[in-house]
Amino acid sequence: MTTAPASTASTQDFNKLLDATAADTEALLDRLLSDKPEQGEILRPKRLIEAMRYSSLNGGKRLRPFLAVASAAMFDVPRQGALMAGAALECIHCYSLIHDDLPSMDNSDLRRGRPTSHKKFDEATAILAGDSLLTLAFDIITRDDVHRDPTVRLLLTRALARAAGIGGMAGGQIMDLAGEGRFGDKEPPDVAKLQQMKTGALLKYGCIAGALLGQASKEQYASLDAYGHAFGEAFQIADDLLDVEGDAAALGKPAGQDAALGKTTFVTQLGLDGAKRRLQDLLKQADAALAPFGAKGDVLRAAARFVAERQN
Amino acid sequence: MTTAPASTASTQDFNKLLDATAADTEALLDRLLSDKPEQGEILRPKRLIEAMRYSSLNGGKRLRPFLAVASAAMFDVPRQGALMAGAALECIHCYSLIHDDLPSMDNSDLRRGRPTSHKKFDEATAILAGDSLLTLAFDIITRDDVHRDPTVRLLLTRALARAAGIGGMAGGQIMDLAGEGRFGDKEPPDVAKLQQMKTGALLKYGCIAGALLGQASKEQYASLDAYGHAFGEAFQIADDLLDVEGDAAALGKPAGQDAALGKTTFVTQLGLDGAKRRLQDLLKQADAALAPFGAKGDVLRAAARFVAERQN
Repeated sequence: MTTAPASTASTQDFNKLLDATAADTEALLDRLLSDKPEQGEILRPKRLIEAMRYSSLNGGKRLRPFLAVASAAMFDVPRQGALMAGAALECIHCYSLIHDDLPSMDNSDLRRGRPTSHKKFDEATAILAGDSLLTLAFDIITRDDVHRDPTVRLLLTRALARAAGIGGMAGGQIMDLAGEGRFGDKEPPDVAKLQQMKTGALLKYGCIAGALLGQASKEQYASLDAYGHAFGEAFQIADDLLDVEGDAAALGKPAGQDAALGKTTFVTQLGLDGAKRRLQDLLKQADAALAPFGAKGDVLRAAARFVAERQN
Repeated sequence: MTTAPASTASTQDFNKLLDATAADTEALLDRLLSDKPEQGEILRPKRLIEAMRYSSLNGGKRLRPFLAVASAAMFDVPRQGALMAGAALECIHCYSLIHDDLPSMDNSDLRRGRPTSHKKFDEATAILAGDSLLTLAFDIITRDDVHRDPTVRLLLTRALARAAGIGGMAGGQIMDLAGEGRFGDKEPPDVAKLQQMKTGALLKYGCIAGALLGQASKEQYASLDAYGHAFGEAFQIADDLLDVEGDAAALGKPAGQDAALGKTTFVTQLGLDGAKRRLQDLLKQADAALAPFGAKGDVLRAAARFVAERQN
């Protein structure tokens, strides 16, 4: 049980920390997604565990688990608990990608350059793999090695349900579909509110998880909540800017998809310069929110810059 | 905070208890599925809450909540906690019906005589309503009014995840699809194991929930586990028998659907007489499991008979 360093982090140091958390998350998910049933489970059907592993292993930067680990590290809590919370969060993220890719949702054939779940397997399997990853997240977050205090684990569980559910990510997804005119008239959505739900809620949960694991004071909790809020919006603006100005090769997908779909984004709403100014404002807000933590906040400061400046 | 009576129950008394729990569950779900966001939620989008309410209100006998309430009543715990656990369980049950009905799964247009969710709304909304009911279940089960002891709430949460996930209901559904030859060769499934997962796990959870809420001894927990196991299998055999011998009018759906699909059921596996004998054996097992509870077990005894003898 070690705690991650939380001192001044250069970009290189930051990337190292990010990679280390990704590797630990990968190993943990590999273990949690074994084909051996846990107590209370009858068996884990081969096809279903294969589909769950396909969409959750070898995946991405693991930014959400990183936020949980980095925010928890500010409170010197055992790294294992933060990794568990991060793994639960990542299960939710991966479930949402499987379901969002379905033909009736975004109808995507490719994700990170590989066939999406319903293309690799079939629609029924993809739906059940998503359902099962969502369910597994709530199994993981209740376990003893998340935190010694049951009350903390309960708070983490309930906050995760609210970040993922109707008032969070799932609610954001239906607002996004509504904004495309899928249920009748196309009504330009409130982009800030939509992203706060669709992508922001899970990113903020990573930060909040650290505060809960660290049994933070009310003031510290509010600081991480404010940081997570700014981080989530910065993440989405950077995403919207990349879709306009990004390089398809670096992105691993064509740029200009939002415009092609006629989507309302931060860029269409604020203009290119307005979106860039807003992004800089958010970085300042994120920095300011971390002020009470002094040097311990350096990793999260670097995380906000990383997200704002990323090229993919 | 009253506790349900647990003395000798005639069929009439039993039906009254069943109806009372259904009414209380309905009122509770109506409150839990309000359009007002809870703390940590941004807003509850109109279309999504409508779809969640459509598939979870005005629904069925509420057998699963009844099992939670009746088993908890044996331990004289507050009825409110059992109703909350029952509501969480019912959210999982309703989510599973929405997803099972989808075109890529069982492709059903009607459920209890009304259009299924994807027919009433659309596929994307149905998937998200299911996802959100699943997520809401884990929000509900963590709340303070489930049980005063956080450890009990955590045990309830984890057991629910395991009953619903890959090693329980979701796993059973993929095995059912595999048994229909959906993923290649049609292989007759192990019917007992399949039903133990697909329908049995949630029914058993109802019984286990009572034991957890009542902080039962190991022996009492094992008794309710055994009862729940027998109950779940009896429920499925009765279902398979109804599909062969039932009256379409009473069922509210055509009989003979299993045979039309060429499904392996307890009846195809054991024969009509064999299935009936097995059902009687299971009733005896359920009775025997309840022996340590004496007269307090009468309601659950009546529940097993009710399920075995039901006409729809």
